Amino acid sequence: MRGTVLYGPRDVRFEEREAPRILKPTDAIIRVSAACVCGSDLWPYRGIQPIERPTPMGHEYCGIVEEVGKDVRTIKPGQFVIGSFATSDNTCAICKHGYQSSCLQREFMSAAQAPFLRVPLADGTLVPTSGMPSEDLIPSLLTLSDVMGTGWFAADAANVKPGSTVAVVGDGAVGLLGVLSAKQMGAERIIAMSRHATRQKLAREFGATDIVTERGEEGIARIKELTKGIGADSVLECVGTQQSMTQAINSTRPGGYVGFVGVPHGASLDLGQFFYTHVHLHGGPAPVRRHLPELIKLVLDGKINPGKVFDLTLPLDQVAEGYRAMDERRAIKALLHPNGTK
Amino acid sequence: MRGTVLYGPRDVRFEEREAPRILKPTDAIIRVSAACVCGSDLWPYRGIQPIERPTPMGHEYCGIVEEVGKDVRTIKPGQFVIGSFATSDNTCAICKHGYQSSCLQREFMSAAQAPFLRVPLADGTLVPTSGMPSEDLIPSLLTLSDVMGTGWFAADAANVKPGSTVAVVGDGAVGLLGVLSAKQMGAERIIAMSRHATRQKLAREFGATDIVTERGEEGIARIKELTKGIGADSVLECVGTQQSMTQAINSTRPGGYVGFVGVPHGASLDLGQFFYTHVHLHGGPAPVRRHLPELIKLVLDGKINPGKVFDLTLPLDQVAEGYRAMDERRAIKALLHPNGTK
Repeated sequence: MRGTVLYGPRDVRFEEREAPRILKPTDAIIRVSAACVCGSDLWPYRGIQPIERPTPMGHEYCGIVEEVGKDVRTIKPGQFVIGSFATSDNTCAICKHGYQSSCLQREFMSAAQAPFLRVPLADGTLVPTSGMPSEDLIPSLLTLSDVMGTGWFAADAANVKPGSTVAVVGDGAVGLLGVLSAKQMGAERIIAMSRHATRQKLAREFGATDIVTERGEEGIARIKELTKGIGADSVLECVGTQQSMTQAINSTRPGGYVGFVGVPHGASLDLGQFFYTHVHLHGGPAPVRRHLPELIKLVLDGKINPGKVFDLTLPLDQVAEGYRAMDERRAIKALLHPNGTK
Repeated sequence: MRGTVLYGPRDVRFEEREAPRILKPTDAIIRVSAACVCGSDLWPYRGIQPIERPTPMGHEYCGIVEEVGKDVRTIKPGQFVIGSFATSDNTCAICKHGYQSSCLQREFMSAAQAPFLRVPLADGTLVPTSGMPSEDLIPSLLTLSDVMGTGWFAADAANVKPGSTVAVVGDGAVGLLGVLSAKQMGAERIIAMSRHATRQKLAREFGATDIVTERGEEGIARIKELTKGIGADSVLECVGTQQSMTQAINSTRPGGYVGFVGVPHGASLDLGQFFYTHVHLHGGPAPVRRHLPELIKLVLDGKINPGKVFDLTLPLDQVAEGYRAMDERRAIKALLHPNGTK
């Protein structure tokens, strides 16, 4: 089997690797129907988050179960499944509170940019669809594994409700799907912050009512202008830098909510300043497993089409081009087909 | 009139000052029935928060309305009133969301450690009781102006619900009233962190089920031991230091809530670490005005007796001793009687 391995900054290789096999009785092996490149893969790709050794890449996946370990009870070979980027037993005290991405047995997935994938804790990590989904739904189902699940969690963490005024910081795939999520949750006004025409267009398709191109202090001032001078009820932070976090907090009205899902890199918060903002702050790695059943239903019912974020589709052996295109912002998000036929 | 003025570190004077008078048509003048020294008064008293000029002190008050400006509509002379430490119009967009302590017209009160006090925005800041309360209820009603309102907001911000497991960091008057608030909100288990026998005793009276004396890493480990290994549902941070904030966040279960009301001094948050805690963070200056009607009712109905935090009562002209006793932790909280008769 060949799979994707990152060797160092901008050095992605698609190379021969050992095919995954059942290591623990709670594992499953799936045949990957589609995988993709995540915005968070770009941190190590760009060398901002150093890696110590060649690292198998990819944590977004859906596919067909090939084999299960002897303790796997609910997941069966032949099922089409979607799983979270974080494994979970879905039974521990933390999982029961809906924070499966902090499960006591959590592992972060990798090696999904490959034809076959081992998924630990299969019963608690994977969710099967009731039948075999049609080919055209695969991209949307794939997004639920991370990028759409994360946009949804951002909106959920930011307390988006029917009638809310929402601002979204970040026009990457997560931010765009944050817009879609806010729309689905009934937000009345959705302000997308973006300077890129193609992303602005998709944001509008997903439900954005306003686009703000300004950043920093000017961006905050513009959001306030659009929100009766007080700021948005809910702000989704989908980047993870100091600037984006400051922008998010200062664009929120007192008593409003920031949902932050961009993995923070070098960002901190002065609590003396934050205190006087009266903002609610919540975020972290999205508990995708919590949201999967609801999101799968929304996709299968045709209510949402998050797969539109894929504006580049490549055979898996061209994965390196997927990284390049996203790094250079030529593509919003790259879908990878292991069979190489599309 | 004589009133309390802070001149510099540990230099509190009770001296002749001009009596307050109506400056704006929305002002009221009240005759102070009781005032007190706040934990936050100790920051400038200790020189940790420098002052630029002699500063009239005191922001917790209740009393009888003497006079109102010509635009005051609902507050009437002769009424007994309790007001927030932060003024509010109670009509702006932020007030309507329940964050009156971020009102567009907010001012922070001062000069309440005196026989008479000017209260701006009287209609939006003060809440009258329906009749004249009996003398024994005055201490409890006084606490609603800040310390009890703040403890209550901490519990509210920390999402305390019936059945919750709660930890309280800080055994000052706010922390102790956070315990009382959590109990009133139906918490099942309330862990007070305290090393002081008298404070532990009051915490237990207010509803604490467990006392933890350890701090730092040991304190966190102890809280986890008491909470099935995962941390408390809700943690009230009532101090404001780096250590107390770290303690609060790391004692909370993933998906749990920290309500922070200790004014942060030099504290910050590494967002890269906070991200993986999955904690909800909310706090700030308590919107006391939001909580006042409910809390007044609880006091008048005899459901809560927050006035127990006053373990020292002084005539107002001995205010300097009140500061000293609290600074030296000989007293939890000092009540001041302007008439000097008690």
